[in-house]
Amino acid sequence: METLPLAITGGDCAGIGPEIVARAVAAFPNERFVIYTHRALFARACAAAGVPVPEGAGIAWREQPLAVPPEAVEPGRNQAATGALAHACVAAAGRDALAGRVRAVVTAPFSKAALRLAGHDVPGHTELLARLCGRQEATMAFFAPGLAMALVTIHCALREVPGLVTRERLLRVFGDFAPALGRLVGRRPRIGVLALNPHAGEDGAFGDEEARVIRPAMAEATALADWEGPLVPDTAFTPAADPGRFDGFVAMYHDQGLIPFKSAAFAEGVNVTLGLPFVRTSPDHGTAFALAWQGRADAASMIAAIRHARRLTA
Amino acid sequence: METLPLAITGGDCAGIGPEIVARAVAAFPNERFVIYTHRALFARACAAAGVPVPEGAGIAWREQPLAVPPEAVEPGRNQAATGALAHACVAAAGRDALAGRVRAVVTAPFSKAALRLAGHDVPGHTELLARLCGRQEATMAFFAPGLAMALVTIHCALREVPGLVTRERLLRVFGDFAPALGRLVGRRPRIGVLALNPHAGEDGAFGDEEARVIRPAMAEATALADWEGPLVPDTAFTPAADPGRFDGFVAMYHDQGLIPFKSAAFAEGVNVTLGLPFVRTSPDHGTAFALAWQGRADAASMIAAIRHARRLTA
Repeated sequence: METLPLAITGGDCAGIGPEIVARAVAAFPNERFVIYTHRALFARACAAAGVPVPEGAGIAWREQPLAVPPEAVEPGRNQAATGALAHACVAAAGRDALAGRVRAVVTAPFSKAALRLAGHDVPGHTELLARLCGRQEATMAFFAPGLAMALVTIHCALREVPGLVTRERLLRVFGDFAPALGRLVGRRPRIGVLALNPHAGEDGAFGDEEARVIRPAMAEATALADWEGPLVPDTAFTPAADPGRFDGFVAMYHDQGLIPFKSAAFAEGVNVTLGLPFVRTSPDHGTAFALAWQGRADAASMIAAIRHARRLTA
Repeated sequence: METLPLAITGGDCAGIGPEIVARAVAAFPNERFVIYTHRALFARACAAAGVPVPEGAGIAWREQPLAVPPEAVEPGRNQAATGALAHACVAAAGRDALAGRVRAVVTAPFSKAALRLAGHDVPGHTELLARLCGRQEATMAFFAPGLAMALVTIHCALREVPGLVTRERLLRVFGDFAPALGRLVGRRPRIGVLALNPHAGEDGAFGDEEARVIRPAMAEATALADWEGPLVPDTAFTPAADPGRFDGFVAMYHDQGLIPFKSAAFAEGVNVTLGLPFVRTSPDHGTAFALAWQGRADAASMIAAIRHARRLTA
């Protein structure tokens, strides 16, 4: 049976999307790709950046609509037309993945502000794809060599975080993360769970969510992994804590997980959506409008995202 | 005029306090110290750790009460007697600093649990010394070579953080931190202010504290420093963000500041209390009960704390 191709979305074509997609696809000459974008606009951005448009037997295109002429698009700026295009690309790739026409989806970054200009109010790819799959939520996780991080809450105000750290959400994240990590390391994974509060609440002196919610959820999930925690967050990533003894961590909120992840693993980090019927990966950076169409974008994280999608679908 | 000595508290004598105090004091043969502790218990802990008790013309002792015989103290355990002793040492050193008998206070770590057993319910040294000085709050900051971090909120549940990020508290922290940093770097400091919410709230989509509270407070404090922000927290410490261009950062909550600080600067980190009538520094680690009285404790952070107190009082 022939292996299905990988879906690659072009992201926001006013950003570095076309450049990093073109560079990254070229790094996998033996892979088959379907690229979701507006082809003429994609080509214009590549020409400006001085990067060849991907071509060859392994490359297919799924053209998506652009409401303005390609010449009307300005690099480095949020625009309704490119926002609408970016949204259409993700939706089409997701539908093709659900229909079994591609084996995984790798997404280039889009701009949430541009999506809003186009009338799509979604916090990010993770939430958009979850809705497309009829799920309320999916699990956002990040992988780099030697470091994996799953987030219990994602795009919400810090004020809302404690109320969202519930038994149900913890069990969903544990259940999405542990098997993915187990497949990656080839055995029962060892996972550190970060506390919500400073000093892990110091025995209830600064918050009780550790004893009331997190610890009981960990106890319910013993079948899935060796869990340790709730860990004191500010010392969990110091050399003395030996973070390498864990296969991965669960963080209670966006910046608790992503401050240490991005500090340690910026260029090689991959964003992975878990809990969907298909694998979805992406680079862990944004549209980088300031670098758009200049030929200066680093495709390392996009290459890592493709490599990770291949590994998870091998 | 003769320079005043430095006050050094022995911390919790059931932990690594005596060992790191003895090692660190020996590293400054030309400095004058007053050591606040129970001398016989301190000597017992040093003997067990195989470290000489400090002696010489520069060393003075301010004996503090111990409610049990020194032989009754168990290493590595929270006890009321050592908690009461640790509290008495800090109180005595603080009073001597207020009275102008010592020029700064360097504190070895105590255990908040042991203090509670002794009937003292204080979240930490910072709050204890603030109360002693008749202030409601002081500013907790951390310094290491090339990195300085002030915290707007400290020992509270994450749930309470958003409500505590007020104009008044921000202006107090800005006013305590900027001049200290300015003295250290010898010019008007450049300070990055971290946002409270992920993606700095993404234009109000995930929280409005950036526009409603943080940005206006920064505008009120332009006389003090070149402020930049509110910075997106998860990318502020990546190599691409070039964190070294700032002299220091202001973090909105404990783990937001201390996860990156301790990851980057564990052994050399110094905790500094700002906004008191005197300088107070300490190592940025705890009592390390698991290492107590074994001769294996690392005094690097305690040495850095003494060095920093000397620099700030030179």
